[in-house]
Amino acid sequence: MLIMAVNSGGSSIKYEVFDIRENSFRSLLKGNLKRLYREDAHLEQKTPDGKTVRKEIPHADHEKGLRFIVEELGSPQSAIQDISALEAVGIKLINAGKEFTSTCLIDQKVIEALQNYSSVTMVHNPPALLAIEIFRKILPQTPLVGVFETSFHRSIPEAHRAYGLPWELCQKHGIEKLGFHGNSHRYIAERIQALTTFSKKVISCHLGSGCSVCAIKDGKSFDISSGFTPQSGTIMSTRPGDFDPQVITFLQEKEGFTPQEIDQLLTRKSGLLAISGKSAEMWELEKLATEEKDKRAELAIEVFVYQVKKYIGAFFALMNGVDALVFTGGIGENAPSIRERIASNLDALGIAIDHEKNQQTVGQERKISSPDSKVEVWVIPTNEELMVAREVYHLLKQQK
Amino acid sequence: MLIMAVNSGGSSIKYEVFDIRENSFRSLLKGNLKRLYREDAHLEQKTPDGKTVRKEIPHADHEKGLRFIVEELGSPQSAIQDISALEAVGIKLINAGKEFTSTCLIDQKVIEALQNYSSVTMVHNPPALLAIEIFRKILPQTPLVGVFETSFHRSIPEAHRAYGLPWELCQKHGIEKLGFHGNSHRYIAERIQALTTFSKKVISCHLGSGCSVCAIKDGKSFDISSGFTPQSGTIMSTRPGDFDPQVITFLQEKEGFTPQEIDQLLTRKSGLLAISGKSAEMWELEKLATEEKDKRAELAIEVFVYQVKKYIGAFFALMNGVDALVFTGGIGENAPSIRERIASNLDALGIAIDHEKNQQTVGQERKISSPDSKVEVWVIPTNEELMVAREVYHLLKQQK
Repeated sequence: MLIMAVNSGGSSIKYEVFDIRENSFRSLLKGNLKRLYREDAHLEQKTPDGKTVRKEIPHADHEKGLRFIVEELGSPQSAIQDISALEAVGIKLINAGKEFTSTCLIDQKVIEALQNYSSVTMVHNPPALLAIEIFRKILPQTPLVGVFETSFHRSIPEAHRAYGLPWELCQKHGIEKLGFHGNSHRYIAERIQALTTFSKKVISCHLGSGCSVCAIKDGKSFDISSGFTPQSGTIMSTRPGDFDPQVITFLQEKEGFTPQEIDQLLTRKSGLLAISGKSAEMWELEKLATEEKDKRAELAIEVFVYQVKKYIGAFFALMNGVDALVFTGGIGENAPSIRERIASNLDALGIAIDHEKNQQTVGQERKISSPDSKVEVWVIPTNEELMVAREVYHLLKQQK
Repeated sequence: MLIMAVNSGGSSIKYEVFDIRENSFRSLLKGNLKRLYREDAHLEQKTPDGKTVRKEIPHADHEKGLRFIVEELGSPQSAIQDISALEAVGIKLINAGKEFTSTCLIDQKVIEALQNYSSVTMVHNPPALLAIEIFRKILPQTPLVGVFETSFHRSIPEAHRAYGLPWELCQKHGIEKLGFHGNSHRYIAERIQALTTFSKKVISCHLGSGCSVCAIKDGKSFDISSGFTPQSGTIMSTRPGDFDPQVITFLQEKEGFTPQEIDQLLTRKSGLLAISGKSAEMWELEKLATEEKDKRAELAIEVFVYQVKKYIGAFFALMNGVDALVFTGGIGENAPSIRERIASNLDALGIAIDHEKNQQTVGQERKISSPDSKVEVWVIPTNEELMVAREVYHLLKQQK
């Protein structure tokens, strides 16, 4: 059975096609259409033999891009060739509220729910909605399945999810902590269980351009840093993470901002970019801080490290200890100095990483804690596409 | 030297007069004018010999109330009699922004700063402004000194204070974590140092109708749960504490709320009251939860306990361990079951309280940790009035 997993973002479309036989998932090919809407838009596609093919598609938009991807999949050189052999397309969906969190066929209700939360999930929902619309046109016979980032977090206890806001408003609009990056944290939960069978209490740090820290207890999400929208939790590239909510009304009173302007501000103009004033990229901030002694870049990094540490401590207390701490995501997998800063001075929590092991950036699953660390510290490359495909597979199996 | 400390709230005015001789502070009398603007408004005044005198002042407003208090102080039965002997009046001020945090004579600039933050500190700033106005009328010769709740927290490192919001806006409006309850946490910092000289890392939980958790390192504030306004941090009686800020724009888009309506909602209609739907009082919630098995009352308590636990864990990690954990404030001093729920299942942090010791509600400083607890757990009744008077005393001494 062939299943395609799609992650349609604002400036890129990632996809992967899996060949599934008896619960075994083999990646046939994966690709990333980068820099959408720009002159240098291009597709990078990897085949199972490890080759990467790059093709230019100047100024590709979502429709042009997705049509190109589907054509490539159906081409004679492709590992698939026959596009009708695709059993289903699974689309990673971010925020459709608390009513839509379980993997399902995408229907009008799902679309409306995504629209309902678009203003407060503007980086993610609109491009996903675009992908849904385009797939319906270009692959009208292929089932479209929604796989939600919020799904994994439905196990979080009510007391961790509830906000101290007027009850009726929360009920009416489904306002509570939803949590995101569920596919990544679910993958980490499973991998760490396979790698360290003793791990009952895990903290998973997904640190990329978006970030979240997840407390995983007995394989289930027990708490998560992000809340009702993906802008909350720890600071991110252009999103603020936690801050005093009433800053919003204060800014509105002083500057006359509309809700829409605040949404824009929280989504695109905040985070590491706002503090540094120069970059939203951690590697660039590290360069600025070390080579140019840029104080705001250094402050941005410090804020990032501080906020992750706070959640590690909070979840350590909530679970009354931790067996394993995992780093994943672009920064979590590839920024050893950030991992080291986060994990340093945490020996009261039994966390100690090995400087040498931590420096090895081999892109593989690896333990980086020192032998005397009570808590095992791991780097695990995440695999959200696999989780999306697996969710789709299970749904199709159930329906048969 | 006689100094009066005043805490002018929305529905009560608390005050205490100290006789200060060579750094020794003796309380001459203290009072609480309760239930302002109501028919049953009344003054309860305690004298040094422990007597409490109650006097009715139906429908007293701030002016009528403060005039009554000053008349009482000057009456022949009073321990003071001669009101002109008052060297100064110190007023506890909550939020005048980051530019006004140091104890100072209250001038027009302080008044304007308090006004500037009134909308987002509406429970505290307006009644303090009223008190300033009235004291200027009724005691025109007596210096009025502002003692800020934010003062103690200026030692918090920049990375703990900075929000990931647009830099220029934060600079322009002084937007950062300010932190509150500074007079209480400063008192706790000093008392715990006197009681347990080894304590370099302390977590102080001020839990009352307002709440905050403070990390105290080497006697200085190192971090605090509350932020730019007193509505943030852990959940409070009618204030929400932390939640995803973008809930605000979402509610504005769906319900058309103005910033002013949101401010009202976050100040008076949120918190424990919102979750329970029945009460903002912890003792009442506990009664509802235990006697009537009220689920929303129980949920409100669980959220309260959860959020305090989270901050204890976060600060435990930030300071890489804790020597002492202190409870203070109305709930912190008088709700043993809440203390027990917060401190339970924290043995991974070395925290264990003694059930019997914790039950003793004697209103005195006391250690409640079990003998094998690595972290000493204490209940310490706070004394904000003393801190206010001391700040005033030091300012006057400096100026002489």
